[in-house]
Amino acid sequence: MSAQATRVSLRDIQRPVAPELELVAQELRRIIAADFPIIANANDHLLQVKGKRFRPTLLLLSHQAVGGHDPRVVSLAAVVELIHLATLVHDDSVDHSALRRGMPTLNALFSHQVAVIMGDYLYSRAIIELVKVGDLEPLQVFARVTNEMTIGEMRQLEAHDKLAYSEDQYDLLIRSKPASLLAGACEAGALRATPAARAALARFGMLLGMAFQITDDLLDYTQPEAVTGKPSGLDLKEHKVTLPLIAALPRLTVEERQLVARLMATPAPSDDEVSQVVHLVQTAGGLDFARRRALELAQQAEAELAALPASTAREALRDSIAYAIERRS
Amino acid sequence: MSAQATRVSLRDIQRPVAPELELVAQELRRIIAADFPIIANANDHLLQVKGKRFRPTLLLLSHQAVGGHDPRVVSLAAVVELIHLATLVHDDSVDHSALRRGMPTLNALFSHQVAVIMGDYLYSRAIIELVKVGDLEPLQVFARVTNEMTIGEMRQLEAHDKLAYSEDQYDLLIRSKPASLLAGACEAGALRATPAARAALARFGMLLGMAFQITDDLLDYTQPEAVTGKPSGLDLKEHKVTLPLIAALPRLTVEERQLVARLMATPAPSDDEVSQVVHLVQTAGGLDFARRRALELAQQAEAELAALPASTAREALRDSIAYAIERRS
Repeated sequence: MSAQATRVSLRDIQRPVAPELELVAQELRRIIAADFPIIANANDHLLQVKGKRFRPTLLLLSHQAVGGHDPRVVSLAAVVELIHLATLVHDDSVDHSALRRGMPTLNALFSHQVAVIMGDYLYSRAIIELVKVGDLEPLQVFARVTNEMTIGEMRQLEAHDKLAYSEDQYDLLIRSKPASLLAGACEAGALRATPAARAALARFGMLLGMAFQITDDLLDYTQPEAVTGKPSGLDLKEHKVTLPLIAALPRLTVEERQLVARLMATPAPSDDEVSQVVHLVQTAGGLDFARRRALELAQQAEAELAALPASTAREALRDSIAYAIERRS
Repeated sequence: MSAQATRVSLRDIQRPVAPELELVAQELRRIIAADFPIIANANDHLLQVKGKRFRPTLLLLSHQAVGGHDPRVVSLAAVVELIHLATLVHDDSVDHSALRRGMPTLNALFSHQVAVIMGDYLYSRAIIELVKVGDLEPLQVFARVTNEMTIGEMRQLEAHDKLAYSEDQYDLLIRSKPASLLAGACEAGALRATPAARAALARFGMLLGMAFQITDDLLDYTQPEAVTGKPSGLDLKEHKVTLPLIAALPRLTVEERQLVARLMATPAPSDDEVSQVVHLVQTAGGLDFARRRALELAQQAEAELAALPASTAREALRDSIAYAIERRS
């Protein structure tokens, strides 16, 4: 796959829609503005934690790639980021996370209560904005997607028998979260395109989102921490079963599986226990398996783009695949 | 006020829309249905805690009172109940409440995580259903209302200096929550009415909702508990400042105010401390003040109904005022 050969920066991908992305930032600020002190403070904090705006980028590029010229696309791009933010706020609250991208989470900085309410605030703001756009179709896309994401959240909670978690279950999980929102972003950018182009972009977003998540899960096994120089293995510490482990498990010996089972049964596993399992997963080929799967999804995503005419935006979408599977953070 | 003279049951009020309310119950079941085990269990539990369906009743009566015959009103009535349910689930999670109407809350029965996610699930289901109705106007009403409710939730958290909490702040609080949802219910039932009738019903719902909440807050001071025979004073225990206390405070002596301040500063006040403050509030006329205010709002609500033609539905709406301010639970 040619997109693989070069290392692509987010800035490169965003170039064709850079002016619109500027407007999206303003829109976001306008949409979530509030007189109310706690909400205003929480908003300031959320906007400080500047995200990569990956979802708005995909939405704007999809729009451009199908030849769209609707100025309302800026609102839609702001909405997709807002829904993403609302989801992060509730996720952090559900997971009791204290940090997100090195900044304190709302639940840590304010309280659990504020986080639950702020998530609701941001989501209802997003709906108000979608109503203003005056079109039922993007509402339909985003309502479906947000509902799918809640089911994904439940799937994550449900995994009781960790060692029996299957690749199919993992697939369903990452489809509903986070891939469905990336699919929704691409689809919402292409609502006025031909049904074939719209469906191709929705599938593109789904496949890209799945590859994106597998890459995230791989980073947890491979990315050296600043302090220790070793992989953090945070997912393992939190007993999250992801593709590298799922792929490795059938190839482990009985004794090795017992090590994994013991880690999953330990409320706060030590760094040593985590390192041991990281090593087992690597030796058994779990990382290679996950890398191959991400690459396969990336190739399928790229194939979907053939449905679109050649354009700078289409090239940027292609580059976003490379970005998704090659990034280091 | 004539509506005051007779004691009205909820069943009486619901009679004109009884067949539609049956359909609403079926709709609710259909809308929130899920294959996913945790969600299905949580749904079953939520539907077991059979609410009074007061908001759907108001929506259906408003529709009938303006001569509406739109079958989609059943979906809207189900949606308003669903939004109410979603709000309760998140409220209970924010407040860490263990019981609601004598039944365990989702956060108690499952977990805090499940409660946060279920609230999001129910709300996104409501939006999906509103999109299916195929009309942007009810979406606009309910998006605005749910956003107002989140601001109301923040207002509740914000009250730091308890003894300085003013009647104006209390007014803003109960307007945004719970009154805005009752206003939204009445307005959503009358979207195709004349602008004057629609606005009158929205104001009716708001005033009714405010009277409803003041009555709730009064019950906390007056309703004897099953076991102790004394008022529970739960709001005081949780340091919630409501109208009876706000009205009483300026009439208390310095020593009496110190008693209140001490209770507000005590993490878990004893039953005796609570009883003392309940007694102070009563003696200082706080309960009488709140009752007069509820009655005043009730009369203003009734006046709004003059904008509508005489009908059985209008009578039932009038009776709902009496129900709201006379109920014992």
